[in-house]
Amino acid sequence: MKDKIIKFRKNFIGPNLSISYDDPLHLIKSKNQYVYDHEGKKYLDAVNNINHIGHCNMYVSKKMITQSKKLNINSRYLYENMRAYTKKLLKYFPKNLNVVYYVCSGSEANDLALRIANNYTKGNEIIVVDNAYHGHTKSLIDISPYKFKNKGGTGKKNHVHILDMPDGIRGKYRYKDNNWIKKYIQDAKNLIDKVSSNKRISAFYSESILGCGGQVVLPKNYLKEIFKKIRSKKGICISDEVQTGFGRVGNNFWAFQNQDVIPDIVTLGKPMGNGHPIAALITTKKIAKKFNNGMEYFNSFGGNPVSLSIGESVLEFIEKKNLQKKSFILGNYLIKELNKIKKEFPEKIIEVRGQGLFVGVDLVKKGNPDLPDKKLAQFIINHCKKLGVLISTDGPYNNVLKIKPPIIINKENIKFLVNCIRKSLLRYK
Amino acid sequence: MKDKIIKFRKNFIGPNLSISYDDPLHLIKSKNQYVYDHEGKKYLDAVNNINHIGHCNMYVSKKMITQSKKLNINSRYLYENMRAYTKKLLKYFPKNLNVVYYVCSGSEANDLALRIANNYTKGNEIIVVDNAYHGHTKSLIDISPYKFKNKGGTGKKNHVHILDMPDGIRGKYRYKDNNWIKKYIQDAKNLIDKVSSNKRISAFYSESILGCGGQVVLPKNYLKEIFKKIRSKKGICISDEVQTGFGRVGNNFWAFQNQDVIPDIVTLGKPMGNGHPIAALITTKKIAKKFNNGMEYFNSFGGNPVSLSIGESVLEFIEKKNLQKKSFILGNYLIKELNKIKKEFPEKIIEVRGQGLFVGVDLVKKGNPDLPDKKLAQFIINHCKKLGVLISTDGPYNNVLKIKPPIIINKENIKFLVNCIRKSLLRYK
Repeated sequence: MKDKIIKFRKNFIGPNLSISYDDPLHLIKSKNQYVYDHEGKKYLDAVNNINHIGHCNMYVSKKMITQSKKLNINSRYLYENMRAYTKKLLKYFPKNLNVVYYVCSGSEANDLALRIANNYTKGNEIIVVDNAYHGHTKSLIDISPYKFKNKGGTGKKNHVHILDMPDGIRGKYRYKDNNWIKKYIQDAKNLIDKVSSNKRISAFYSESILGCGGQVVLPKNYLKEIFKKIRSKKGICISDEVQTGFGRVGNNFWAFQNQDVIPDIVTLGKPMGNGHPIAALITTKKIAKKFNNGMEYFNSFGGNPVSLSIGESVLEFIEKKNLQKKSFILGNYLIKELNKIKKEFPEKIIEVRGQGLFVGVDLVKKGNPDLPDKKLAQFIINHCKKLGVLISTDGPYNNVLKIKPPIIINKENIKFLVNCIRKSLLRYK
Repeated sequence: MKDKIIKFRKNFIGPNLSISYDDPLHLIKSKNQYVYDHEGKKYLDAVNNINHIGHCNMYVSKKMITQSKKLNINSRYLYENMRAYTKKLLKYFPKNLNVVYYVCSGSEANDLALRIANNYTKGNEIIVVDNAYHGHTKSLIDISPYKFKNKGGTGKKNHVHILDMPDGIRGKYRYKDNNWIKKYIQDAKNLIDKVSSNKRISAFYSESILGCGGQVVLPKNYLKEIFKKIRSKKGICISDEVQTGFGRVGNNFWAFQNQDVIPDIVTLGKPMGNGHPIAALITTKKIAKKFNNGMEYFNSFGGNPVSLSIGESVLEFIEKKNLQKKSFILGNYLIKELNKIKKEFPEKIIEVRGQGLFVGVDLVKKGNPDLPDKKLAQFIINHCKKLGVLISTDGPYNNVLKIKPPIIINKENIKFLVNCIRKSLLRYK
C-alpha cells in the first residue's frame, strides 16, 4: 500500500510537495505526542507544531463534535461562540490589540495583513528579515526571501527590502564582534532611512523567532529598535506568530512578548486549531477602522462556529493543563540536555538555541560556523526516525535540526529524543 | 444576548464584514436545509451554498469524527485517504485534468492558480470578466472588478483587462440585438488581440456562472470561443468553480461542462467540505510539471486527512442521494415556478435565470432593464426572512435575488420559497 500511495502521489498530487524522510512515513494512526506507521511502529513526534496540544486530542474532538452537530454557518450571521472565543483569545493580547479577523490559514492572515498595512499607510514598501517565510500566496512569496531568493524564485521585487538576519553564528556580525547586535540594528535603520527617503514604507514583517532562518532567536532589543524606527517612518509593525504562538515559547504566550514590544498587527495560524484550518489577524481599532473603507472583507470559512469551537477548546486545554508553563520548563530542560551533547560534540554542534519548545541545533563541520553541515543534519533526522523520533531540518543551509513537538510532550520523551540525537551523532561517519 | 453579540462584533471583530439582513439573524441551530434562530423560529435556507448537502449533515459528521480520532497530520507524510479521495474526485474531471493541489479556501486555490499560470506562461496579463470576484487575497482583489472598481477599491491595475459581462439584459449588447453573443465574443477577441500585441497573456479567469455579476449564465459558445482565442495567444484558461461546482448546476457536475469546454485549471472551494475549510486546484500534468521548478508548494492544512475524509464523505453523499440529478430536476422546477411569478409581475421581474439550483431573479422598475430595483430586492429578502426563508441579493446593482440552497432541498421547500417571494412582491409598495 505504501508504494501504491507514493506512486499515486507522484502521478496525481502537485509534484512540488516533497514528502519527509529518505524513506517516507506511511502513517496509520496518531495520538497525543505519538504517530504510528503502517507496520505499527510508534514514533515520538518532536516536529509537528501544528498538532500543538497533541494529535487527535479528545478534548478538542468532543467540542468539535458537539458544535458540528449543532450549528455551522458563515460569519454573516450571529452566533454566540464568536463572542465567547474572541473574548478568550483577546485576553492573551495587550489591550490595544483588540480587533480580530478570522481566516483559514497563516497565509491568509499574512496576506490580509499586507492589504491592511498598505491601506493604512498608503505605502507599498515592505521590510522583511532575510530568509523569512510568510506564506504561499503570490503577494507573500514576493516578501519571503526564503522563497523568492531560492530555486524557482523570481528574485527580489523592487518594493521589498531585506534586513540581514541578526545571526550571531554565521551572519555579517557575530557574537565575537563588539556590539554585534547594535551593528545589525544600525544597518537596519540605515536601510529603513534609505527606503523612506523617497518611498513610503508600508510594513515591517517579522517572525518572532526566525523559523526558516534556522530557528534563530532575535537578539535583545532587536524588534524594539526596529519597531521604533519603522514607526518613526509611519510604517506598521507586523509580528508573524504563525509558528511561535499559543504558549510554545514558554515564558510568554506569544514570542513577540519576549522582545518586549507591542506590534500593530499579529498574525496567527498553525497551532490555533490543533490541525484544523483556523487562523486569525489581530490589530488595533485605529487600523481596523481605516481598513473599513467601503470594501467588504468576507471569508467563506473564516470564523465559522465549528472552527471557533475548536479554537476555543485549544485555548481551554492549554489553560487547564498549564501547557505554557510546561513548555517553559521542558523547553529549558531540552536546551540544557542538548547543550550537554554540544559539549560532547563541539566540532559538530556550534549552537543550541530556542525558546520554550521551539528549538534549533546548528550543525557544522570542524566547529566552523562557515561550514554548515547539511549532510549531518539529514543523517540525524533519518537516523532518529529509525530510532523512533521525528524531527526535521531548517535554515538557509538546511543544517539546523528543527525541534518543535506538541507541547504535551513529557520529560521522558525529551530524554529519549536527546538520546536519539546523541546516538545519531555517534553513528555518523 | 443578540444585542450583546451585535455590540461585541462591532467592537472586536473586523468591521468590514456586514451581517445579513436589516434585523440580523441570531442562529442557535442548523439542520439539513433549515436554520433556527434564538427564538426557535425555523427558516428554510435557500442561499447558503457552502452548506451544500445540508447543515450539520450526519453522514459527513460521522466520517469526520472517525478520522479525527484516528489520524490528523500534514501532507508531508503518506496516508491512504489522500489516494482514496483524490481518485474519487478526479473521476469527475476530464481525463487530462488529473493533478490536484489541496488548499483551504477558494481564495487560496485562485491565488495558487495565478502563480501557476504566471509560471507556465511567463506572462503577467490577466483577462477577467466584468464584475467577477475571485477571492480576497491581495493578488485576487487586483483581478476582481467586483472589488477593485467599487468602494474602497484602488482601481484597475495595468496588468488586468476586463471583458464586458455578456449580459443580454442590460449589457452593451442585448437579446434584441442581432448576433448579440457574437458581438460580445468579438469584442473579447479584439481586447485579447490588443493585449497580446505587446504583452504576454498569463490567464483568463472565469466563473462558470457569473455570481457577483448577478447569477448571469454565460451564453452558448462564449467560453468555447474565448478559450480558443486565449490559447491561440498561449494563455491559460482558468474555470473558477468555487461557487458552481459539485453538482449544483444539475445537468453536469461542474458548470464549465455546460459550456462544452475543458479548462487548463479548475478551482474548487465553498461546497467541497460542506462548511469545512477545504478547497483544491486541478490542472494538467504538463502545467503541474512546469510549476515544479524547484520551489516547494506546501500548505500547512491543505490535504490533511480529516479535511480529505470530509471531502470524501461529501462526494459519497452526493452520489448516494443522487443529488446532482435532484439539483437538475428541482432547479428546473424552481425556474419554472419563478417564471410563473415573472408573468404575474412583468414590470418587476425582467428575468429568471440560472442552472440547476444556482438561480437569479433580476428585479427592475417598470419592466425597464436600465432601472434595476435594488430597493425591491432588499425588501424581498427581508420580507422573505420574516416569512421564514433565507435568500440574498447580488449583481453590480444588487437587484438580483440570489437563490442557491443546500441541494438536499425538496419540492415542498421550493413551493414555499416561491410563494414567499410572491407574497413579498404583492406586499411591496
